[in-house]
Amino acid sequence: MKLSRIISNAGEWLSGDGPHRQIVVSSRIRLARNLARTPFPGWAKRAERMDTLGLIRPAIESLDEMREAYAQNLTELTALERQVLVERHLISREHAAKGAGSAVVMNVEQTLSFMVNEEDHLRMQAIRCGLQLREAYATVDKCDTELSRVLDFAYHEELGYLTACPTNVGTGMRASAMLHLPGLVMSDLINKTINSVNKIGLAVRGLHGEGTEAMGNLFQVSNQTTLGESEEKIIDRLNDVIVHIVEHEENARQTLVERRATTVLDQVGRAYGILCNAHSMTSKEALNLLSVIKLGTDLGLFPDAARVTIDELFIETQPAHLQKGAQGQKMTADARDALRATLIRAKLKQLPEPDMTKVPATDVDIKEPNDE
Amino acid sequence: MKLSRIISNAGEWLSGDGPHRQIVVSSRIRLARNLARTPFPGWAKRAERMDTLGLIRPAIESLDEMREAYAQNLTELTALERQVLVERHLISREHAAKGAGSAVVMNVEQTLSFMVNEEDHLRMQAIRCGLQLREAYATVDKCDTELSRVLDFAYHEELGYLTACPTNVGTGMRASAMLHLPGLVMSDLINKTINSVNKIGLAVRGLHGEGTEAMGNLFQVSNQTTLGESEEKIIDRLNDVIVHIVEHEENARQTLVERRATTVLDQVGRAYGILCNAHSMTSKEALNLLSVIKLGTDLGLFPDAARVTIDELFIETQPAHLQKGAQGQKMTADARDALRATLIRAKLKQLPEPDMTKVPATDVDIKEPNDE
Repeated sequence: MKLSRIISNAGEWLSGDGPHRQIVVSSRIRLARNLARTPFPGWAKRAERMDTLGLIRPAIESLDEMREAYAQNLTELTALERQVLVERHLISREHAAKGAGSAVVMNVEQTLSFMVNEEDHLRMQAIRCGLQLREAYATVDKCDTELSRVLDFAYHEELGYLTACPTNVGTGMRASAMLHLPGLVMSDLINKTINSVNKIGLAVRGLHGEGTEAMGNLFQVSNQTTLGESEEKIIDRLNDVIVHIVEHEENARQTLVERRATTVLDQVGRAYGILCNAHSMTSKEALNLLSVIKLGTDLGLFPDAARVTIDELFIETQPAHLQKGAQGQKMTADARDALRATLIRAKLKQLPEPDMTKVPATDVDIKEPNDE
Repeated sequence: MKLSRIISNAGEWLSGDGPHRQIVVSSRIRLARNLARTPFPGWAKRAERMDTLGLIRPAIESLDEMREAYAQNLTELTALERQVLVERHLISREHAAKGAGSAVVMNVEQTLSFMVNEEDHLRMQAIRCGLQLREAYATVDKCDTELSRVLDFAYHEELGYLTACPTNVGTGMRASAMLHLPGLVMSDLINKTINSVNKIGLAVRGLHGEGTEAMGNLFQVSNQTTLGESEEKIIDRLNDVIVHIVEHEENARQTLVERRATTVLDQVGRAYGILCNAHSMTSKEALNLLSVIKLGTDLGLFPDAARVTIDELFIETQPAHLQKGAQGQKMTADARDALRATLIRAKLKQLPEPDMTKVPATDVDIKEPNDE
């Protein structure tokens, strides 16, 4: 299967449906596993990494779930193709930087992907639309069980699964959800929320995980610890917190609409006006403005059909995706910014104009005029 | 005549025509005159100021040019009405703050206005569309000659006209032009231009004269000195400099269109998108965005009919004009910002959409991609 087939497909987690879909963009479970008595990828020699690949890749490809899969050794992919996979969250930035012995295997729906020789010998992840942490875990857990029949995973009776980095020892699991929180950001409540979540031992990160900036009002919430708690308990705890954040976000949106309708209409209007008329746009600005349009859609200002267009633009306006669309021609950042703006204008013009009367403008008190 | 008749009229200088109209918004000549052997307004007692008014106002109203005039003592105007006149550049900020004894007289076309008991006993100004300093001077000079037949102006054989502030002694004249210089601003050439103009003894100021900020890419260029040179020479010198600046601005625009077309299209597009879709806007932002649309019209992106709409918005979106439009109800700054955005959206939606193909997009080189 070719990469183009993956790229032409938005991915089930993006185009699908799931609980709290408007706020919880996606749920993801990642398990880290390593072969027993085999050096971790960071310490392994090239031949050892190749041996690991030779053992793990066929095992993945023989899984029921992966009968129709896209599998590729990273050395067979260009830097651009790898970056496309990173932008889709199908491989990690770290994995994209690896060489011989590293590979990626994923299903067409892009709900299940495996990285061979990332930081660990094997990292497998399941991703679902909306709040479906338990469902994602069930999928990846099944794969893990099947793989453990043919692969000898490094496991310690007391510690659990052994991993290259001690922070993953135990379950080897990271459970996370990508949340769209424009209401909390616009209400200046986001930092308070992040602090509360941090205090109970969960992490909040930007769009591309650890060490990345929050863009487009997107935040990743995940477990920090992998020791001393079962996978189910970690997921339950994370799930409860996310339900709580979703409620906070819903309340924040409600309050904004009731008390600061003009501000909401202004921000959505401006985002729409700029996206429809700009001739140059960075990916960061595009993300931030599309986030506001996404909020506008949730508030009923745009027809529901706009949802797909906006979600597609979130993916397609990223640098590598744009570059890939340019028939392999290498582009300057300026050319990419111009192409991005052209793509967005064309797509948004297909949508009907927003109906701003769906959010009634706040009546502002008639008071003594202030100096300007 | 009522103030409403003045307000309903855009003013000849705004709606009219004149040389270099696209870049030179208006030309203005102001003469300062004082009555001999009479204390300057700042030192005069109330009764003395009333005497001055009693002498000067009838003399103005008997001028041929002022047969159909709007005349009002400032005490008969509300603070809001005075502010409307300030926003139209028909009276100065200082004059608006004066009390008993101060008055304003202007013709319906708003090309000629007289302030009684401002800093000086009498300030008269003529304003014209485009670069018409000489024409404006001829108008105001004629009034000055006629008035000097019935009023005894303080005049010193060596120094010339005596004024309250020594910087005006001599001709008592300030000649100025309001220039729209978005090309020089976008090309980062504006400071160089301002410095050159300053070096040859001319002043560059913001929208409302001395001590005000440059907004909407509008700059006032005027003479600094009033001693040692005849009115004609001062005007000739200023005129030459302005013609020079106009050339610079035209060159800057040409270069922008040829080398940075995407930037120009981007800025015009964004300004249009925001103006058409915002729901709250300060007067400063409105001025700045309207300035970009004005540039877009000069470049042919908007039909010529847009010119009137944009010029009207420049005036009508100012705080006092908006307030005045609200049937005397006092508004908060927030309410005014919302009303301003609504007014702009409504007016711009009457215009056809811009034709961005009129400026061909720059072809960007296809080069090695940069990291983003």
